[in-house]
Amino acid sequence: MRLSPYQIEEVVRRALDEDVGSGDITTDSVVPESAFASATIFAKEEGIIAGEDVAKIAFRMIDRRIIFSPVVNDGELVEKGQTVATVEGPAQAILTGERVALNFLEHLSGIATKTHHFTEMIKYYNAKLTDTRKTTPGLRFLEKYAVRVGGGYNHRRGLYDAVLIKENHIRLAGGLKKAVVLARENIPHTMRIEVEINDMEQVEEALAAKVDILMLENMPPDLIKKVVQVVDGRAIIEASGHVCGEKIIEVAKTGIDYISLGCLTDSTEPLGMSLKIGEIKPGQKEENVADASREKENDE
Amino acid sequence: MRLSPYQIEEVVRRALDEDVGSGDITTDSVVPESAFASATIFAKEEGIIAGEDVAKIAFRMIDRRIIFSPVVNDGELVEKGQTVATVEGPAQAILTGERVALNFLEHLSGIATKTHHFTEMIKYYNAKLTDTRKTTPGLRFLEKYAVRVGGGYNHRRGLYDAVLIKENHIRLAGGLKKAVVLARENIPHTMRIEVEINDMEQVEEALAAKVDILMLENMPPDLIKKVVQVVDGRAIIEASGHVCGEKIIEVAKTGIDYISLGCLTDSTEPLGMSLKIGEIKPGQKEENVADASREKENDE
Amino acid sequence: MRLSPYQIEEVVRRALDEDVGSGDITTDSVVPESAFASATIFAKEEGIIAGEDVAKIAFRMIDRRIIFSPVVNDGELVEKGQTVATVEGPAQAILTGERVALNFLEHLSGIATKTHHFTEMIKYYNAKLTDTRKTTPGLRFLEKYAVRVGGGYNHRRGLYDAVLIKENHIRLAGGLKKAVVLARENIPHTMRIEVEINDMEQVEEALAAKVDILMLENMPPDLIKKVVQVVDGRAIIEASGHVCGEKIIEVAKTGIDYISLGCLTDSTEPLGMSLKIGEIKPGQKEENVADASREKENDE
Amino acid sequence: MRLSPYQIEEVVRRALDEDVGSGDITTDSVVPESAFASATIFAKEEGIIAGEDVAKIAFRMIDRRIIFSPVVNDGELVEKGQTVATVEGPAQAILTGERVALNFLEHLSGIATKTHHFTEMIKYYNAKLTDTRKTTPGLRFLEKYAVRVGGGYNHRRGLYDAVLIKENHIRLAGGLKKAVVLARENIPHTMRIEVEINDMEQVEEALAAKVDILMLENMPPDLIKKVVQVVDGRAIIEASGHVCGEKIIEVAKTGIDYISLGCLTDSTEPLGMSLKIGEIKPGQKEENVADASREKENDE
Amino acid sequence: MRLSPYQIEEVVRRALDEDVGSGDITTDSVVPESAFASATIFAKEEGIIAGEDVAKIAFRMIDRRIIFSPVVNDGELVEKGQTVATVEGPAQAILTGERVALNFLEHLSGIATKTHHFTEMIKYYNAKLTDTRKTTPGLRFLEKYAVRVGGGYNHRRGLYDAVLIKENHIRLAGGLKKAVVLARENIPHTMRIEVEINDMEQVEEALAAKVDILMLENMPPDLIKKVVQVVDGRAIIEASGHVCGEKIIEVAKTGIDYISLGCLTDSTEPLGMSLKIGEIKPGQKEENVADASREKENDE
Amino acid sequence: MRLSPYQIEEVVRRALDEDVGSGDITTDSVVPESAFASATIFAKEEGIIAGEDVAKIAFRMIDRRIIFSPVVNDGELVEKGQTVATVEGPAQAILTGERVALNFLEHLSGIATKTHHFTEMIKYYNAKLTDTRKTTPGLRFLEKYAVRVGGGYNHRRGLYDAVLIKENHIRLAGGLKKAVVLARENIPHTMRIEVEINDMEQVEEALAAKVDILMLENMPPDLIKKVVQVVDGRAIIEASGHVCGEKIIEVAKTGIDYISLGCLTDSTEPLGMSLKIGEIKPGQKEENVADASREKENDE
Repeated sequence: MRLSPYQIEEVVRRALDEDVGSGDITTDSVVPESAFASATIFAKEEGIIAGEDVAKIAFRMIDRRIIFSPVVNDGELVEKGQTVATVEGPAQAILTGERVALNFLEHLSGIATKTHHFTEMIKYYNAKLTDTRKTTPGLRFLEKYAVRVGGGYNHRRGLYDAVLIKENHIRLAGGLKKAVVLARENIPHTMRIEVEINDMEQVEEALAAKVDILMLENMPPDLIKKVVQVVDGRAIIEASGHVCGEKIIEVAKTGIDYISLGCLTDSTEPLGMSLKIGEIKPGQKEENVADASREKENDE
Repeated sequence: MRLSPYQIEEVVRRALDEDVGSGDITTDSVVPESAFASATIFAKEEGIIAGEDVAKIAFRMIDRRIIFSPVVNDGELVEKGQTVATVEGPAQAILTGERVALNFLEHLSGIATKTHHFTEMIKYYNAKLTDTRKTTPGLRFLEKYAVRVGGGYNHRRGLYDAVLIKENHIRLAGGLKKAVVLARENIPHTMRIEVEINDMEQVEEALAAKVDILMLENMPPDLIKKVVQVVDGRAIIEASGHVCGEKIIEVAKTGIDYISLGCLTDSTEPLGMSLKIGEIKPGQKEENVADASREKENDE
Repeated sequence: MRLSPYQIEEVVRRALDEDVGSGDITTDSVVPESAFASATIFAKEEGIIAGEDVAKIAFRMIDRRIIFSPVVNDGELVEKGQTVATVEGPAQAILTGERVALNFLEHLSGIATKTHHFTEMIKYYNAKLTDTRKTTPGLRFLEKYAVRVGGGYNHRRGLYDAVLIKENHIRLAGGLKKAVVLARENIPHTMRIEVEINDMEQVEEALAAKVDILMLENMPPDLIKKVVQVVDGRAIIEASGHVCGEKIIEVAKTGIDYISLGCLTDSTEPLGMSLKIGEIKPGQKEENVADASREKENDE
Repeated sequence: MRLSPYQIEEVVRRALDEDVGSGDITTDSVVPESAFASATIFAKEEGIIAGEDVAKIAFRMIDRRIIFSPVVNDGELVEKGQTVATVEGPAQAILTGERVALNFLEHLSGIATKTHHFTEMIKYYNAKLTDTRKTTPGLRFLEKYAVRVGGGYNHRRGLYDAVLIKENHIRLAGGLKKAVVLARENIPHTMRIEVEINDMEQVEEALAAKVDILMLENMPPDLIKKVVQVVDGRAIIEASGHVCGEKIIEVAKTGIDYISLGCLTDSTEPLGMSLKIGEIKPGQKEENVADASREKENDE
Repeated sequence: MRLSPYQIEEVVRRALDEDVGSGDITTDSVVPESAFASATIFAKEEGIIAGEDVAKIAFRMIDRRIIFSPVVNDGELVEKGQTVATVEGPAQAILTGERVALNFLEHLSGIATKTHHFTEMIKYYNAKLTDTRKTTPGLRFLEKYAVRVGGGYNHRRGLYDAVLIKENHIRLAGGLKKAVVLARENIPHTMRIEVEINDMEQVEEALAAKVDILMLENMPPDLIKKVVQVVDGRAIIEASGHVCGEKIIEVAKTGIDYISLGCLTDSTEPLGMSLKIGEIKPGQKEENVADASREKENDE
Repeated sequence: MRLSPYQIEEVVRRALDEDVGSGDITTDSVVPESAFASATIFAKEEGIIAGEDVAKIAFRMIDRRIIFSPVVNDGELVEKGQTVATVEGPAQAILTGERVALNFLEHLSGIATKTHHFTEMIKYYNAKLTDTRKTTPGLRFLEKYAVRVGGGYNHRRGLYDAVLIKENHIRLAGGLKKAVVLARENIPHTMRIEVEINDMEQVEEALAAKVDILMLENMPPDLIKKVVQVVDGRAIIEASGHVCGEKIIEVAKTGIDYISLGCLTDSTEPLGMSLKIGEIKPGQKEENVADASREKENDE
């Protein structure tokens, strides 16, 4: 579940291009290039941390001399005020990277925290929580990672890795059964077939077609319960289209296998954090700094 | 305020790579390649639309034969159930592009709607609403566009286009005054200087240093009011750090010039939309379709 | 099963960068810029065509005035000497694009032809032919497309879209059963679980663990036959590791569901083709050509 | 002849994007993140190795903690069963990188081996073996490198670095002589001029035009022999269009200078290899691993 | 000698990213979106035009509705005040694209003009003028194109397409002769060998080694003359290292074959141009414009 | 003012792709792979150095074993013949990277030197020197960096970070006053408004509109002087459109605040430098070199 640097670097580079662009005009103007500092990133509210590696790479792409040390690991809980990570190095680079690093950390931790919140809510039931494809364009792999960090499960990653036959597909294919037959004929044998179900009649039709997974679209809990009884283990059942809230518990109680929630990724509040500069070493002589850096880089 | 295609195409290509990847396995398997359809995108709730051009490019990057026609323009209000745009073309391409197009449209319209909501709330006051740098990594230029569409104003776009001296900068520079002098000496003459202010003492210090803009960090409305009186037009004043909510009105009442809200972009709910397939022409002969397409492309 | 232009353009751009680079020194030097020509691409041997759209885009990325017209569609058979496509436009652009267009067309048609050859060989049996991940780096989506064009099926597209537990995984997980349990716990519910099987004992173990698909690694046909009997429909069975050759028929005869062949993509000979210049219009006046082009492009 | 990391990284990144994508679902699910392992890559058949640096970069782009150690260098012969390289590090990363690393190593070693095979075949003659532009789109610089590793020579790298006047050019230029004059007038003075020759008459024409290199297209060995005698050192002579096989010896015997073979790169079988996990250290504690990595990276 | 759109688009996109970035704040604020205008680009001084296609693409990447019409073609002379091209379309897009389009046009025309100046200077002599590798990073193919437009010739395009053995190579190889032998053994047979020559002794050494081209490094004209006599047609001779100025005539008079000048590309003044807005149609209704555009794009 | 590696690497990669491409054919052929060397880069004329980090990254992207050590820092003066930097490592890599490294160093140092020249010229006056947007496409951030290194100031970086209302804008907006009002209404409050001024009447109009900065376009010094008196501190005044030369002193004497010079970046001669190979260690055994490298890289 570790992310590889080659995956993270691309997305961080874009974020830096966007925010830092041709340079941090404020920091470059007012902070001495020779100043070194240590800083802490602390949480302004309680939550689950996700994205330490992303923040680390953001700082280090600006200046390789920065030492970023996570204090809590991804998946762990921080309390309000607790330190999330420490950052040491050239003061300019720390301030320049602050916003990009925090934007990632806060966004991903927000998702992990929200996911954790809902998994806790239904932990006494069998149902597993999954995400959807309602993710932020360009950040899907990170957001799906954060969902896993928060204790959730990933639904399909895109249109390429699973089959989900929806209402529009059924209409265009000329019926549910025909759609399933066509899918079975054409897809890789490693994939299951999931079908969107809107009423009881379709449940029977889907079971007859030996569909692997039923996605119950926006059904009330008591109807879900009936479907669970009718299906009786002959297919996996997923509930979709529900609003994020306490109502999820009622859905979980029905005995359903999966609940997929778009809100995990499409409307999450960031987990608030701040970066605070601690100790400063303003007197460090420019030349020596440069020398140190040079030697270090050549050690690579 | 029009976005250029070369800017949009990059971000849409990444979103398609991410979602469609090597292909839409469901649609390719169950929908006939020869089927043509018309579809409508309609709003599931009331709001301000933003992102029509992005959705259009998303569909057309998948298949140039798609005709995407906005029914409402960016910045206009849609009511629940109203049609936002129509899409005509190969049925496969319409279904393949649906999610990426909606993810952009819903996200940007969500931001425009939220911005509109708050600008309406304070419309009887002088204060203008601005965004911040708390945007989604990779989507800043689109999100800032959506804020403008919703009636808000853009704060700086990044670290490169404006000077904002914050607490950490002041400490590292060795004092507010010194930081302002250093900035004035080094920045382009086209830029104003903004300074984060945490108390009354700093207000005086900033005015003495001829700071152009004071950013009052998380101050209560009555203290803001005092600052407004003291400053008396000698600087622009911005209130920052406030939670999204009715409290904004109290802030606006103080006579402040700008209110910047991170929540416009960092925790917006999407404006719900759906794509519905309308008329289908399943009988269109494959060969003719191909021919038509060929001729069309060669007309370019 | 249509490829989108945005997918093809990237890979063609790289191929053009590589081959044409800063320009076709020969053609630019010896062929008049004003000459227009028509050309035919014809097959030097019998086979199945794949990649017409790729060739078309290759020519048109060099010069938008080129009209590329497929004479046979992807998936159709050409005989030796038959015309595959015609190309009309500026003679310089036709010659400059020739090699890149042919490299794609020949390579993809080679794969489609080979796939077709083997699907024909086993057409009286139940077994379906699939590809593997032994594809050419950078061309996987095109090569998997060509396999489908040739009548084959795609196995998983990468490590991200299906679960295949191999010998090394089993050893690292601490046993087949444990590996399957771990997989079931962690993967999206849309995926099936496939396990590499090396002997009869593992078959029983896998069935007990309710594995969805058994991948029989390099087993002789008579052993495969026994597995088929033992499994008796309780799992899908795939034969892997077999050499491309007549022996495939023996494997197909066992009643197996799938045969995966690395050779479809990792060692295919191109289907030989040639481009022949036909009619030439050397006299076309430079100025008029430029004018025509200008008007056309502005019509876009 | 060393490849620079900046060249290799691009092509490997694409291959990883394609194969690993959003993550190795199997390995991430069943292999403990804390497990470390050592593995060997061994040859399943005899051949010449090429691509050690590419394989190394593939593994290290996934996880910088991997130590990849070539056991034989590029250009050396391995026997069946012999170890090609060892890989040590996190077990997850080793399994995730296996296929991409092997796809490159097997493909490039296949080309080096085939090239070596044919250079050995004609080693008692003067003729040198060269490749062509019939390479895999996107991999040309690597494939041409593998040809050199195998003892062959590179023909031109693309349309930009050498002049080769073919039949179509001659026709469009209005004759061989005219084409050569035009080329001489326009090309950089650092380049020689090569012309495709189809019969004895053209040989005389080319010599009269002071062509530097004659490319004899698909000529039978006895005709080549005559050309060699007629030319008598006044130009370099290259034989093209010959099938890969023993017949090459007959061509080499004619006294020709170069034989170019498209088959070196357009239809090579990979040199079969396998990765086998050796020792495993499952007990390594997560935290310590992370710490070690952190220190190491900060040493950069 | 035509540049392909796929080559130009990349370099123009970078220039637009750099200059326009997230948007043209001035134009978007003060120019009505509905205004259409026509504009002319005219020359502020006499010179040779190069880069019309680049300017055209720059404008059209911003807005496809722009019609850019060259009035003079690349390679033609404009007088002071003469119109170079006309631009029609949305006024915003014209102003936004102005600087990027002019930066390319002025820079490339500056190179073409300078090249033309020096080729005119030596037109009564045999010597041809060539460029060097002292080009602006990222713009080499465009700058070499401009040199050709101006009547010059291209030297090698990079380290990959020609052999030039310099002083440092000779020293590292262990002597001129040894270096030439090594080169002959390793390079493609399509390439000539050029060697840097610093004195008469090296001339003899090079001729003995059958070097194809002698590059006389910074030799005075009378010494060049002697070399020309000694060589007597046995090799091509190039003079390098000379300052741009009248002295070139003296070098040309020696009978040398080529003179390479770094100054053609590394220190050229732009050919001054201006864009002037002509007729304005401010009343064009927004909706109609949008409609027109929509139809147009769908015609593609 | 330090540039981050992630910014430099992109632009250097493009330069290497362009110059080295598929490989340095000369060096690879004639210089032993095992040879190590030390080299010095020295200045051929006096000037201010800029770009040491860019040169360093260029060499190290080719081979990580190279140790590049600046002898003078950016911003320092070198005299003719003085050493600018030393380079140690594999001889092949040093020669391959030489031209790209020097092209950057010479170009950026040329800009720094020219900027320094003009800032010295006007150092007894109040006026500051700024650059413009007339930069080389693709190199703006580096060229603006070099201007700062040379003692100049940066004007706006692009169309996105400042407002400059020019003649064409005024005409399209319907007057200077209207343009200023529109700008004030739409731009971020962090930006000042600058307006192009062509005569005395416009000065009054601009002051009445409370414009922040007047850009006097191509005005003679005595008229500038009058404007300075009239404005009397009510706005910042910038002189634009002047030719690079002694005349700048007359402009500076007027009491103006800023002088912007396009010539700082659009027509600068490179500061001539050379790379000279010093000590060579030809005997270093290949295997050991490889081992050393391997260990080093694994230390990362």
